[in-house]
Amino acid sequence: MKLQSPYLLFLGDARDPFAIKLARGVVDWRPELAIGEYSLPECQITTGLKQLSISQAKAQGAKSLVLGLANSGGTIQENWITTIRAAIAAGFDIISGMHQALNAMPELVALAKEHGVTLNDIRHPKQHFTTGTGEPRSGKRLLAVGTDCSAGKMYTTLAIQRELAKLRPCTFRATGQTGILIAGEGVAIDCVVADFISGAVESLSPDNADDHWDIIEGQGSLFHPAFAGVSLGLLHGAQADALVLCHVEGRASMRGLANQPLPDIATTMAVNLQAARLTNPNAKFVGISVNTSSLDDTAAQAICDKYAAEHNLPAVDPLRHSVAPIIENICAI
Amino acid sequence: MKLQSPYLLFLGDARDPFAIKLARGVVDWRPELAIGEYSLPECQITTGLKQLSISQAKAQGAKSLVLGLANSGGTIQENWITTIRAAIAAGFDIISGMHQALNAMPELVALAKEHGVTLNDIRHPKQHFTTGTGEPRSGKRLLAVGTDCSAGKMYTTLAIQRELAKLRPCTFRATGQTGILIAGEGVAIDCVVADFISGAVESLSPDNADDHWDIIEGQGSLFHPAFAGVSLGLLHGAQADALVLCHVEGRASMRGLANQPLPDIATTMAVNLQAARLTNPNAKFVGISVNTSSLDDTAAQAICDKYAAEHNLPAVDPLRHSVAPIIENICAI
Repeated sequence: MKLQSPYLLFLGDARDPFAIKLARGVVDWRPELAIGEYSLPECQITTGLKQLSISQAKAQGAKSLVLGLANSGGTIQENWITTIRAAIAAGFDIISGMHQALNAMPELVALAKEHGVTLNDIRHPKQHFTTGTGEPRSGKRLLAVGTDCSAGKMYTTLAIQRELAKLRPCTFRATGQTGILIAGEGVAIDCVVADFISGAVESLSPDNADDHWDIIEGQGSLFHPAFAGVSLGLLHGAQADALVLCHVEGRASMRGLANQPLPDIATTMAVNLQAARLTNPNAKFVGISVNTSSLDDTAAQAICDKYAAEHNLPAVDPLRHSVAPIIENICAI
Repeated sequence: MKLQSPYLLFLGDARDPFAIKLARGVVDWRPELAIGEYSLPECQITTGLKQLSISQAKAQGAKSLVLGLANSGGTIQENWITTIRAAIAAGFDIISGMHQALNAMPELVALAKEHGVTLNDIRHPKQHFTTGTGEPRSGKRLLAVGTDCSAGKMYTTLAIQRELAKLRPCTFRATGQTGILIAGEGVAIDCVVADFISGAVESLSPDNADDHWDIIEGQGSLFHPAFAGVSLGLLHGAQADALVLCHVEGRASMRGLANQPLPDIATTMAVNLQAARLTNPNAKFVGISVNTSSLDDTAAQAICDKYAAEHNLPAVDPLRHSVAPIIENICAI
């Protein structure tokens, strides 16, 4: 998979900040890769990049159109097709993180062939996986887990990897489409055949030097009725030495499910630790990452201090505070 | 998917009774579907059916060759190909429960086309699934869970469905390839894309009459490092009112993993109940199913009595004992 940059980020008709996670992630972590955004008139969100038409972006050197948005089923919407076709006709590669594959749409495949461009379905693993074994691997591993989906696991692990890299050899291991776009490689773990979830994570994070850390992006939550299976396979395959708990302060219910209440932090940690110990008896929590975006600075600090005291662990918002106290715990393992 | 019977069961080079689960299941539950078996010289196992060559089976009216064996990776072995080709050339449909699809092997696809026969990959779901919601559904559901894989979940649920059908409307819901071959429909849940595990189970067991029971075949174990993600998604999607614990007496380690010890029954029940209650707060165990095949009748009865007393639940081996005490608990819900 060779992704051609720079990107034009397509936001479609997104109306929810969570829907443009893919575009947002690139802007926040690899801003040099994106030169603009393009959205439909009904779109109510922006990444903050300038709005560029397909032809303007082409003139400025963009090489790929990134479908920078997501929806629950991962389907390519009818009202995105005109834009995708125009981008192909203008000579752009297309990069998609949707479940529904561009390469399974004959009309787009034919158009791409005609214009000599590539359709990159980054959510579709091309590797051949085997089933997990649970056998210990050399090197150290950290995994982010959460009270919910979309709880800041990617941002947390990227922030930790950036800081830890100053002290230890370490690698960010992407398990979702945004992480893959940022890292340039990885496995979209929610798109792996169910039998191979933990096996795929084992292969994503192979034997390594004893002092090397894999910083593995988490997915879902053991408490989300749709995605808990993915989270459990990821937890078993990661064999994490260190776990970080991610939580969104103030969220009223599980992402996408108004009737499903959020678990509390203590319960989430206990259940994850119990499950993690199946493949790594030494698994332990090294910190709590709180998404405090709904709070002002004072309230954000106060809630982090409260969680730190309650759970006897460093608690920070990696977008507001230093992750140094978590790094200290990691380095002590 | 329309499977043509009767079947000739191909056992390949199987050397392990577990490897021929698919063939065994058909013989035990739908014997009228199979007229014989065919195995390679190095095969050390039999279903007890008479050995028939491709041409003998053809002469006796067989319509499909069933790849009646499995291996851990689910790949179609090189040394099976000659048999598969011969069967296609003789006009047989091929039925496979392997991960590796017959329909992804161009040489077999071409040969099948030439002879006008069908390659049935029953492990490859063709349905379009959505992500799970956890929303309650009408009707009642039972799910088998286990201390391990290959612990008798399919036999247990088939036995329960057969007995319960005398008292209540009920349907066996197949989640594995053998169950699908027996039931004629279902979803091979370990072959679903990971994001849709629980959603697929929700669609497999839809709203139904209030007094109707879906008897859902279980898969894997929350304690198996390779397959726990599948088991958890299945548990959440099933929203089971009733759970049955399946256990193989005397097994030394988790299936396929010599270094992974088995959990005890009490722990397995506690962890399953905790997870099940995320989507059905009323979930409860109604019985224990013990595979006592390693014991004589007296020892089998003794171990069942012991488990019944320890866990205050009926404990039976459905191949040796009546499942009536479990049915009684189900009917009381």
